[in-house]
Amino acid sequence: METIFNHRSIRQFKKKTVEEDVISFILEAGMRASNTGNMQAYSIICTTDEALIEELAPCHFNQPAAKAPVQLTFCADFNRFSKWCRQRNAEPGYGNFLSFLVGMTDALLAAQNCCIAAEEKGLGICYLGTTLYKAEDIINILNLPQGVVPVVTVVMGYPDENPELTDRLPLYGVVHHERYHDYSEEEIDRIYAEKEALPLTGRLLKENGKETLAQVFTDNRYPKIVNESISKALLAILKKQGFME
Amino acid sequence: METIFNHRSIRQFKKKTVEEDVISFILEAGMRASNTGNMQAYSIICTTDEALIEELAPCHFNQPAAKAPVQLTFCADFNRFSKWCRQRNAEPGYGNFLSFLVGMTDALLAAQNCCIAAEEKGLGICYLGTTLYKAEDIINILNLPQGVVPVVTVVMGYPDENPELTDRLPLYGVVHHERYHDYSEEEIDRIYAEKEALPLTGRLLKENGKETLAQVFTDNRYPKIVNESISKALLAILKKQGFME
Repeated sequence: METIFNHRSIRQFKKKTVEEDVISFILEAGMRASNTGNMQAYSIICTTDEALIEELAPCHFNQPAAKAPVQLTFCADFNRFSKWCRQRNAEPGYGNFLSFLVGMTDALLAAQNCCIAAEEKGLGICYLGTTLYKAEDIINILNLPQGVVPVVTVVMGYPDENPELTDRLPLYGVVHHERYHDYSEEEIDRIYAEKEALPLTGRLLKENGKETLAQVFTDNRYPKIVNESISKALLAILKKQGFME
Repeated sequence: METIFNHRSIRQFKKKTVEEDVISFILEAGMRASNTGNMQAYSIICTTDEALIEELAPCHFNQPAAKAPVQLTFCADFNRFSKWCRQRNAEPGYGNFLSFLVGMTDALLAAQNCCIAAEEKGLGICYLGTTLYKAEDIINILNLPQGVVPVVTVVMGYPDENPELTDRLPLYGVVHHERYHDYSEEEIDRIYAEKEALPLTGRLLKENGKETLAQVFTDNRYPKIVNESISKALLAILKKQGFME
């Protein structure tokens, strides 16, 4: 449990190679996660080849974490399952949006198990959400066939930094009792007060030249125009990979 | 780590109430999970009220696990974040498909942390994938506003059964080294051989009156016609909840 409560994302790694048996242990832990109907509708691409990591780095905007020695790309995958069905006189019906979400669910639960196992073994991890932003390039580089869509990448290695724990909203800001209780203006103020008062927030406002932390998100980090363009691309990718039949 | 490797889904629970401090510990563990840009684009609805659990049960096809004493419904949520943006002179741009996937990712990583924490505390857990099937009913019962979509439910309680570990495909069936290597017919046969030889498979064939295990999935458990109808409903729900603007 300490592992869960001590988690911080690591973006700088030692040159040290991660041992084969450590990687296998991590992957086995991922496989034990709950999954839908035990179909295991996901695949994990484990990339350690330096040239290939170099090729993938622009997909992750060349951020420092994209140089990590082990990269696990988690994919929604109904290709394997559908092939099995066809070989067993069964007609697969998984070329649809629900099946993509099922595969994505299975992939993400496995990913989180892998992260906890990696941290238990002394590794540092970082999720790269950029995988959704550059899904098409990743599909091309990793040769993902029809029925397979990458949903997240986890990079890992021996940590070469020791960052502080990052802040979280108070529990009552995220958890609702019994039913959803929509937020009043006062509640929103209260929930975000601590985050807004952090020294980190002050630094971000200065660096980004903004008046409020929310503007750092809407104007710089996750702007509407980018979100909309990526959304359009993702729906096209789901179609191309066979999840919108 | 034993927790991860000993995980089995529990569907029968003791009447024993789960203590408030245990529930809080589980939720706090969920909050420590990685999330996108520290936006925490999710909410957790924690339901313990018996009448409300009764009302939710048909959404989960009245399966035995749907009677569990604690039910956590994990939702993609950009309602809270967008409200905060608007109160801070920032124009949110999260009414799109990418933002739904981001919220779903954050929700699922938190869910898996909650499961591991619950099992560490001696509870049993079960994921209910039915949440995607009956998302509209759940939205109505739990009062989920615009910007909020339920993605998975985890039920938990003190276990009243001790099932065996379920099978998994061999590691080489799910993990690809460096790039994706598509499966040959022979590889599919090899990957599924162990599963097909299990006594459980024999029982399923008999119960379902099928020739192959794959047919149990395609004809009975996850048939195309249902998958397609739910897919259509889910896309309509994303639109209605404001994720397809």
